[in-house]
Amino acid sequence: MTEAEIVELIRSLASEPHPGVHIGIGDDAALFHFTGGDVLLSVDSVFEHVHFDLEMYGLSDVGWKAAAAGLSDIAAMGGQPTCALMSLAFDEAPDEARVRTLVCGVLEMLSSCHCALIGGDVCRSKAGLAIGFTVAGIPPPTGAVRRGGARDGDFIGLTGTLGDSAAGLHILASGREDLRERFTFLAEAHLRPWPRVREGGLLAAAGVTAMEDVSDGLAADLSHICVESGLGCEVEEMLIPVSNDAIELASEVGADIIEWSLSGGEDYELIFTAGSLEFDRAAESLASHGCDVAMLGTMNAGPGCILKRRDGTAIDLRAGGFDHFREG
Amino acid sequence: MTEAEIVELIRSLASEPHPGVHIGIGDDAALFHFTGGDVLLSVDSVFEHVHFDLEMYGLSDVGWKAAAAGLSDIAAMGGQPTCALMSLAFDEAPDEARVRTLVCGVLEMLSSCHCALIGGDVCRSKAGLAIGFTVAGIPPPTGAVRRGGARDGDFIGLTGTLGDSAAGLHILASGREDLRERFTFLAEAHLRPWPRVREGGLLAAAGVTAMEDVSDGLAADLSHICVESGLGCEVEEMLIPVSNDAIELASEVGADIIEWSLSGGEDYELIFTAGSLEFDRAAESLASHGCDVAMLGTMNAGPGCILKRRDGTAIDLRAGGFDHFREG
Repeated sequence: MTEAEIVELIRSLASEPHPGVHIGIGDDAALFHFTGGDVLLSVDSVFEHVHFDLEMYGLSDVGWKAAAAGLSDIAAMGGQPTCALMSLAFDEAPDEARVRTLVCGVLEMLSSCHCALIGGDVCRSKAGLAIGFTVAGIPPPTGAVRRGGARDGDFIGLTGTLGDSAAGLHILASGREDLRERFTFLAEAHLRPWPRVREGGLLAAAGVTAMEDVSDGLAADLSHICVESGLGCEVEEMLIPVSNDAIELASEVGADIIEWSLSGGEDYELIFTAGSLEFDRAAESLASHGCDVAMLGTMNAGPGCILKRRDGTAIDLRAGGFDHFREG
Repeated sequence: MTEAEIVELIRSLASEPHPGVHIGIGDDAALFHFTGGDVLLSVDSVFEHVHFDLEMYGLSDVGWKAAAAGLSDIAAMGGQPTCALMSLAFDEAPDEARVRTLVCGVLEMLSSCHCALIGGDVCRSKAGLAIGFTVAGIPPPTGAVRRGGARDGDFIGLTGTLGDSAAGLHILASGREDLRERFTFLAEAHLRPWPRVREGGLLAAAGVTAMEDVSDGLAADLSHICVESGLGCEVEEMLIPVSNDAIELASEVGADIIEWSLSGGEDYELIFTAGSLEFDRAAESLASHGCDVAMLGTMNAGPGCILKRRDGTAIDLRAGGFDHFREG
């Protein structure tokens, strides 16, 4: 397909009407109306051979996951994503089936969050597929929840379980079909994560003080909250919530489930801090929507960002987590 | 530098205060206030070895030009860019000087248009540097100018001159320092283009009916206006404005200056359509701001998108222009 044909195909696939879209795909820029005028904006990119390989991922999964990562950034502010722009780059002219499969994965994810695809660009890359998502959204009525708002003494909470995505990656990388069939939940957690959009809104409404999505692993993302808030923290390994499937797989393949939780990343759960009253309110609100909340520890004056291991030893979390350019 | 250090450096370089920025670089998403709530959004990406090579371009030029291309999309709607997000990907950990040089080029361009850098992402690519810009802006009071608004009989206008960027590329690719010294204007037109932000606003205020920036060459971009407006057009080769420098260079190196204008692209001039009264008003308004406007021809019922050559022959423009995935 030519560049013009790709744009035309995406335009036809993304044609579902959406309030707010005044100009959609096909012009120099899109035009969206944001009631109130406050707009959250974030961008997130993935590259083939770096973030994913097409031997392990279907194109539809790649599209889904790239969109989910973009939406998760808005969820982490407590916001509601409303529209997205997609940057696509291919190293060779793609056929229609490839583009269609990719875009269908994207639209499946976006429409589950009522987020419209309103624009983007298509060009050539030097090596492999590259996908970038710009997501715009509206902040919660109580104001966007930042990383730097935590207070000394706040509880540290987390939605769902950690390490499932890293466990799923382990299965996919092993190439073992038997594991993939037995641990469907883990493979899906890696291939088709769900951003916590509704939960982010509920947490903001409950009055949490700081929030972030766990995209780089608990170590890195909790460190961000500490650094931005000018505080330290202490969390306990035994309080980190993990799924039974992940425990079973880790034991079977001899992997360290805590390593998956701390450094695996891509769980897209929300980590947040809150005073005791607001924490209870948040946990109750999420429970009534079917989402468990775990209490991992508390914020303190610092300076350490400490994880207490089961064996009584302590490590500083700021040494862990994923960074694209850190050695080792 | 690590990913976290790169983000921190960009945050410190982009720290100039800007009205509208409520949350800037360093959180999951940025928060910007757009008075009125109508927001133009566009995204534009460039890849090393595809759009530029670092033997020919300085990193500061690459940053400038990538930002300029993003701003130009908002200018083409008649809008005022207000804030931008930058996606950066490196194939290896960059040193501080490289990041600083690149970002300074970006900020020089953005701040010339009063556009704040409020966010972005940094990750690893498989091959070379990749830069994407999301630019947000506010539409003109009279409404965003689309590609599809041209009417039968409208005049076709163009700001500035075409082909200078392609001429500059010819000089840079030749590696001839003598040409680069003699034709500084052309090399600069390619390396450091100026988006027509002020002119776009003035054209919208003058009541033009359709507009687009010339990023893929006159042939492709005028074709877009014809297709989206459901019309044809006839333009004359002898009316296409070219600079004296480009004429001199083309004659000296035996190049076809019309080819540079039609297919070269990256001129970031504005092509627009307007009724006769509005055309005169637009030309007068731009002249008073030091920008020449040329009249290239008229829109008609079509279906052809015709260029009348100097020799009396005619060609259809829809066959020309740049497309990333078109053969030949």
